[in-house]
Amino acid sequence: MAAVSAPRALCRLAGQVRPTLSRPDLTRSLSGVTAARPPRPSGRSGAALLWVPRAGLATRSGPRATASQPLSDPVSSPGADAASVGSLDVAIDAADVVATDEAGRCLRVQWRDGSESLYPFVWLRDNCQCSACFLGHPTFVRSLVLRDLDVNTSVEACRVTSDGSELSVTWSDGHQGTYAAEWLLLRSFRPEEQRRRREEHSVEKSHWNASQMSGKLPKADFQQVLDSEPARLALLLALERYGLVVLQNCGSESGQVLRLIQAIGYPHTTHYGTTFKVTTKADPINIAYTTKRLNMHADLPYYEQQPQVQLLHYQRQHGGGGGRSEFADALHVAAELRRLQPEAYRALADTPVDWVNVTLPGETGRSHHKLFRAPVLQEDAEGRLVGLRFSQAQRDSFFGAPLGVVDRWYRAFALFNRMLNDEEYKVSFLPQQGDMVMFDNTRLTHGREDFECPEQATQRCLEGGYIGLDDIRDHRRTLQHRLGRNEFGL
Amino acid sequence: MAAVSAPRALCRLAGQVRPTLSRPDLTRSLSGVTAARPPRPSGRSGAALLWVPRAGLATRSGPRATASQPLSDPVSSPGADAASVGSLDVAIDAADVVATDEAGRCLRVQWRDGSESLYPFVWLRDNCQCSACFLGHPTFVRSLVLRDLDVNTSVEACRVTSDGSELSVTWSDGHQGTYAAEWLLLRSFRPEEQRRRREEHSVEKSHWNASQMSGKLPKADFQQVLDSEPARLALLLALERYGLVVLQNCGSESGQVLRLIQAIGYPHTTHYGTTFKVTTKADPINIAYTTKRLNMHADLPYYEQQPQVQLLHYQRQHGGGGGRSEFADALHVAAELRRLQPEAYRALADTPVDWVNVTLPGETGRSHHKLFRAPVLQEDAEGRLVGLRFSQAQRDSFFGAPLGVVDRWYRAFALFNRMLNDEEYKVSFLPQQGDMVMFDNTRLTHGREDFECPEQATQRCLEGGYIGLDDIRDHRRTLQHRLGRNEFGL
Repeated sequence: MAAVSAPRALCRLAGQVRPTLSRPDLTRSLSGVTAARPPRPSGRSGAALLWVPRAGLATRSGPRATASQPLSDPVSSPGADAASVGSLDVAIDAADVVATDEAGRCLRVQWRDGSESLYPFVWLRDNCQCSACFLGHPTFVRSLVLRDLDVNTSVEACRVTSDGSELSVTWSDGHQGTYAAEWLLLRSFRPEEQRRRREEHSVEKSHWNASQMSGKLPKADFQQVLDSEPARLALLLALERYGLVVLQNCGSESGQVLRLIQAIGYPHTTHYGTTFKVTTKADPINIAYTTKRLNMHADLPYYEQQPQVQLLHYQRQHGGGGGRSEFADALHVAAELRRLQPEAYRALADTPVDWVNVTLPGETGRSHHKLFRAPVLQEDAEGRLVGLRFSQAQRDSFFGAPLGVVDRWYRAFALFNRMLNDEEYKVSFLPQQGDMVMFDNTRLTHGREDFECPEQATQRCLEGGYIGLDDIRDHRRTLQHRLGRNEFGL
Repeated sequence: MAAVSAPRALCRLAGQVRPTLSRPDLTRSLSGVTAARPPRPSGRSGAALLWVPRAGLATRSGPRATASQPLSDPVSSPGADAASVGSLDVAIDAADVVATDEAGRCLRVQWRDGSESLYPFVWLRDNCQCSACFLGHPTFVRSLVLRDLDVNTSVEACRVTSDGSELSVTWSDGHQGTYAAEWLLLRSFRPEEQRRRREEHSVEKSHWNASQMSGKLPKADFQQVLDSEPARLALLLALERYGLVVLQNCGSESGQVLRLIQAIGYPHTTHYGTTFKVTTKADPINIAYTTKRLNMHADLPYYEQQPQVQLLHYQRQHGGGGGRSEFADALHVAAELRRLQPEAYRALADTPVDWVNVTLPGETGRSHHKLFRAPVLQEDAEGRLVGLRFSQAQRDSFFGAPLGVVDRWYRAFALFNRMLNDEEYKVSFLPQQGDMVMFDNTRLTHGREDFECPEQATQRCLEGGYIGLDDIRDHRRTLQHRLGRNEFGL
């Protein structure tokens, strides 16, 4: 046991923290694991969720679905290394207390591979894993009350077990806590490790243009997605990656949209209902309900909490010509716009626009007046492009921009529209009867050519619905854990 | 008719635009109108929605509900001026074409009161109100296709009717359009007018501390809110203004939460269901399901689309002592923090935190892993404080902040928590059996004292649910239009 009493061990740390930790053994042992691997029986179901980062790593290292690969295909088998994933070589050599200019008083952990990590006292105390401070299964929440957290706490003593697997800390108020070596390593404050952790829980978007997507749409079989967790995981990964997937063999009955939504999470009900029908109507309240061309747009921009993933089931396709669906990866097009015409990009990202919907008592018997003010392109706090609102029809005639911005904004908006409709960026295809298109409405624009529908021909009928990205990511992570659990022996 | 051909009328405009337009007659004629006035019969239902700004003005000028006023009380009668609201004195004296340094080529409209407004050509063309460019009832959308909008268009000629009520424009491609004087005035690009328009569609938040809210909770009768549109409007206005309302006499049956939600809009279903029950359980997966103290928090911070307005119906209150509910206007507390300790405020507004929920297969048979990264305090693109995520329990042990920020962030977080729990800011009350509390979960924090519940006493049972602010604002605007329509003679 390496025991250190705080005051005596206090020393100055300068330039000693290594910027990266290679951990070659960990990286190697995870290679070849694939998220789409079928689950194995396990008597300890659910426990894998305690170890979220491992499952995340497994997914990140595994082969990714590509646009050219049908989602229902079996993925390649895991490599021979997969069996060794259970044995992580993470061990602590020593721990001591240091005072740093940057972060104040920290516990410094020296790893067996020679690298080290710093943990601020207050963070370590806040995340004590003892049963009084943290509720494990099935709650998994911090029970240490915030008013009981002493932000001036300090380490009285710390000890490392002889095998380096655990660190024990005694705090200035006498409280004691124990931390597993791997738990600590996965919560390292080194920027590279932090970035990797974030990446493990998310799916990187693959931007696409027409040539990259045309004829290579990610496709999956509807029933297989409902029945098989690996197939469902592959679908969700492709949806997060490309923003667009097609489900085939959905039949012609109503209710399939809700069935798929409920296999993943919960419907996002809008004022069009939990699900809705798109048919050609005599007295349309929406241009979607005509045979006219439906120009590139994103749905429901006038919601603050804009419905995110849309599902459209082609229960019946029209009997005449035309009517191809059009999609563009608007986030890719916007990135191109930023590269080619940065001022136009900034006009669309910086100028709030009023998006509006006025509905008089209609089919639902309700009136509506929705209104939300936001730019066409949404950036997050760190300047990353994360969302889209785009609709010529549902932009208010009131424009709250400064007079000097108006002309510039219109030129940018019109240019962006030309790019979205350019053959370089948009894909067009005619969904077949029984297909369901599922796409990210906050990333893609969609449209429809005009179409002929002779009186005697089949009438076009679509059923639609929405589900939030919160539910998509939630279920994807859950499946990643569940399907990866045996590789980790949990 | 004042006819102007574009090239001849071109002149330089410098410093001629007045910053404000007083319109004293308009302001006076609207005074005394109240949003809570009962509707009058009208054969032209719905048409008021065409004239949204007028109804908005009516509401803004009317007396506002205050925290000390029960929402079910009749509000004061409209003043004698109300009858004259129908006659707006808005007329155009002349129009000509100008080229400005700031905004390029514009149509300049001179109003009868001597002030003037500038309208950029491209905006005016984009918002042509002819039947080919704009679909009126019941669609109310722009049908002019964006690719057909010439951003270099110019005015060939313009004419004003002799009574000044309409402006007609002939464009360089021969297209003609007509604009009503009032329609133009309501879309003025003058910043004051723009701000007023925005304010008309929104409800200003009234921040509160304990002494301002304690004993003065906005209250309403449940059945009256369901049955009466003025009562429902008063409820929604108070909710948007204060973030907190109490509905009384809801009875003890289940389903009342959903009933109220459906009277307003649609439920926001979460992984707790469309509605959910809060009872004391033997094997709780959430501390809410115990008799323990529930510290100040906001719900579901791990959702990107965080459920916004929460409803909690006290179907049965516990039989023992304790258990008072606690609420604080966290946006007010954050504003105080910004004033008193700007660096602490910035730490909470600038540092992303990982919010997490892990659920193993439980009552719903589903597992969940929700995760969202966002600061405690959310500012919009213009730096206004608009949202809140606050939960000690559901903050991840992984903290992705730079090492140098950690200590400062914890001090700010702990200080904010002390303020939220301070008697100066929080209100406490014991909801009665049959009460329903409705509050904005992205603005207020809420908590609950621990409570005694002897075996033989009544067991506490709450039913909860969520509805989005999109629906709240939508229904509030709709009611504002509907209840104000007769004052405007529409």
